[in-house]
Amino acid sequence: MASTIFIQTPFQSKSLNKSLNTHFVPSFKLPVSLSFKPRTAAFSKRVHIRAGLIEPDGGKLVDLHVSEPERELKKREAASLPKVKLTPIDVQWVHVLSEGWASPLTGFMRESEFLQTLHFNSLRLDDGSFVNMSVPIVLAIDDLQKASIGESDRVALLDSDDKIIAILTDIEIYKHPKEERIARTWGTTAPGLPYVEETITNAGNWLIGGDLKVIAPIKYNDGLDRFRLSPVELRKEFERRNADAVFAFQLRNPVHNGHALLMTDTRRRLLEMGYKNPILLLHPLGGYTKADDVPLSWRMKQHEKVLEDGVLDPETTVVSIFPSPMHYAGPTEVQWHAKARINAGANFYIVGRDPAGMGHPVEKRDLYDADHGKKVLSMAHGLERLNILPFRVAAYDKTQGKMAFFDPSRAQDFLFISGTKMRTLAKNKENPPPGFMCPGGWEVLVEYYASLTPSDNDRIPQPVAA
Amino acid sequence: MASTIFIQTPFQSKSLNKSLNTHFVPSFKLPVSLSFKPRTAAFSKRVHIRAGLIEPDGGKLVDLHVSEPERELKKREAASLPKVKLTPIDVQWVHVLSEGWASPLTGFMRESEFLQTLHFNSLRLDDGSFVNMSVPIVLAIDDLQKASIGESDRVALLDSDDKIIAILTDIEIYKHPKEERIARTWGTTAPGLPYVEETITNAGNWLIGGDLKVIAPIKYNDGLDRFRLSPVELRKEFERRNADAVFAFQLRNPVHNGHALLMTDTRRRLLEMGYKNPILLLHPLGGYTKADDVPLSWRMKQHEKVLEDGVLDPETTVVSIFPSPMHYAGPTEVQWHAKARINAGANFYIVGRDPAGMGHPVEKRDLYDADHGKKVLSMAHGLERLNILPFRVAAYDKTQGKMAFFDPSRAQDFLFISGTKMRTLAKNKENPPPGFMCPGGWEVLVEYYASLTPSDNDRIPQPVAA
Repeated sequence: MASTIFIQTPFQSKSLNKSLNTHFVPSFKLPVSLSFKPRTAAFSKRVHIRAGLIEPDGGKLVDLHVSEPERELKKREAASLPKVKLTPIDVQWVHVLSEGWASPLTGFMRESEFLQTLHFNSLRLDDGSFVNMSVPIVLAIDDLQKASIGESDRVALLDSDDKIIAILTDIEIYKHPKEERIARTWGTTAPGLPYVEETITNAGNWLIGGDLKVIAPIKYNDGLDRFRLSPVELRKEFERRNADAVFAFQLRNPVHNGHALLMTDTRRRLLEMGYKNPILLLHPLGGYTKADDVPLSWRMKQHEKVLEDGVLDPETTVVSIFPSPMHYAGPTEVQWHAKARINAGANFYIVGRDPAGMGHPVEKRDLYDADHGKKVLSMAHGLERLNILPFRVAAYDKTQGKMAFFDPSRAQDFLFISGTKMRTLAKNKENPPPGFMCPGGWEVLVEYYASLTPSDNDRIPQPVAA
Repeated sequence: MASTIFIQTPFQSKSLNKSLNTHFVPSFKLPVSLSFKPRTAAFSKRVHIRAGLIEPDGGKLVDLHVSEPERELKKREAASLPKVKLTPIDVQWVHVLSEGWASPLTGFMRESEFLQTLHFNSLRLDDGSFVNMSVPIVLAIDDLQKASIGESDRVALLDSDDKIIAILTDIEIYKHPKEERIARTWGTTAPGLPYVEETITNAGNWLIGGDLKVIAPIKYNDGLDRFRLSPVELRKEFERRNADAVFAFQLRNPVHNGHALLMTDTRRRLLEMGYKNPILLLHPLGGYTKADDVPLSWRMKQHEKVLEDGVLDPETTVVSIFPSPMHYAGPTEVQWHAKARINAGANFYIVGRDPAGMGHPVEKRDLYDADHGKKVLSMAHGLERLNILPFRVAAYDKTQGKMAFFDPSRAQDFLFISGTKMRTLAKNKENPPPGFMCPGGWEVLVEYYASLTPSDNDRIPQPVAA
């Protein structure tokens, strides 16, 4: 699978400034009287990456790692500082921040950034422009930790093995308004939201913001680190492949042939638009996911089979892991998923039905309106530069024996196979209709469910929606 | 009291474009490279009001009334349309919309405006700029009403006496996601939020948006209509008074001498800044308020006494009623309060501690952090043109026997008289310390509480916060 990432092609610089824009709102924020200015005028002063790819938010990819010669010094400094122990999800956020996925954010949010995120889903830059920022990236501490920090203006951050991983400087400690954070991020405060139960309910009553200095790149040593390309590495790879368009596909589920159809069809459409070499970023989410999602390691095995079986073209596909934890916050979170991919170089983003959605934790319905995600994404402040590609619905066409775009004029010919249905089939070692998923990929799924002990299988809740 | 509004002074045009700005973020949204452009450049093309006052949102004050010659025709048209009966609070929103307080909104929100309000607290205009819009202005209907509308593209709106008051055209009916609306607007879904219980909990599961054509100006016939000046009328009054700055003070409580001190001090500061004739808009909220707030009619009597007693200068004060209902939605709602005053011509807005806040309906604490309101207001999208004036805390200075700005260096000299304390004193016919409120104003309060039957008095809940 690594070979799909590192196929050598000569670098060649190309401009991506095609005028295509699928937003329904104008992306150009200058007043009409000034609109003869080219669209990139506002950014022309701060191009720090090689020409061609979309500019990162804030003009420059943030890199929060200390330089290698400094590491030992910083470790010694950290040893003398008040310590804050991180949860594994906190460490995932350190990873996300350190590599600039959240550019121009330079660390865990201070109160001003937290409030702007909650109320406006975006941050105002010094020049008055906005970048999108929809989910709070915050670090909670409790009263005891706050007391231990005292008057220090910096703290050391430790992982669960007490290893120093970073220093947080120029800190600001402020109240953690949990109920308000949950309500404004998820649009509900119902008990049972996975990320909330995992990271907020029992977290401390304070948040600590500041600038991160990360000692060394975060590694998980799970055999998958080689797939965790940073935004800088992804941009290099796209440039090496001579991409003149990059379209990102976020996923946290096994890839079936409906997804594959959508991705190959998107490439076809981009070629029709005049792009010469659109590259797909197949970008499975690698951070925290809820218990009934297929774990990352199994998903990566499944994605590998899909590429091996030729369902997707390795020449034009980059598979990499997006290190962010999952909020399941629907229209709010899909903005984060899109924004982070701008920073990785994607200028097209495919958005499906009910992105980052799930069943309501208490009521018998989906938590979000299935169409709100793509609508909100199209309206989002700070995402004007990104081209949103709404997902076309694919289903199993019984007349063709394969996945095809749903045609409402002959609805009776189509079979919708929900995620729940797919999981039930795989658990029971049954086969889906031929053409639903490549056989190698399906075997991985069957193997995964067989690997679970009976008690594991019992524990897996059946989500309401796919 | 009317005389305080209609003192004749010759009109004289002046520019308000002073460069003062108390925002902590730059208010100028053009890229830095273009920032030599004067701040008003973006608006110069669309000045529809007389020079001098701040431009309304969207460049033009919306007026949704049908012209007088059309009235009979529209009434006849309405008689043949499907009907939607409004609650008194819905009628207040028709009033608000009809006069352009929510400019450039032209009617109850369609889904796109509703989603932008929930997620971004602002609306994007055709030219790519933003106006603030933080509270959803929506009209709920139930399944039966939806069915009765059928395929009609317009409906007639009736008040509680079945009088036709408006037509809603080019309608769009969409789902009313109550829980999400509440969570994203209030930052909580706890039971007991007054506006929620009054207007959402038992409302229909659909929202209907469209363009309003209001048959005739909304009147309440409560003796107070003469104080309900529209944004157009207020702007005329400010111009007639030759205002070169207008500072708005939103309130829903009796005015005590601490408020008065703040308002006179604000005028002093504006004079120091170089303004020649700053006018105060004392702007009590006139729509729905919760049961334990002092009713509008009594507040207006109290405000009248305050002006009669010379605590505020009638020459430089305009008292008028703001027709909006109250959400008690803290940092979200304070943006609406500020935005509406831009449309009425105010370019300065005084913001206090915990604006539009209240006690948490379930927990023993304030619902919002007392500082979040002014912080969020300063960050708000679409309010960049408004100068935010944070409230200085006034308290009763025992050494001077009057209200004064709190001096933390001699905290022991000050007495804080909470709203709860004030109400308790008035109910018990006791007097506050001399200098807390003008005697005439205090008498009105005592009279109000005496007018309540014992059962009324029992019913009045004691809010946690003032």
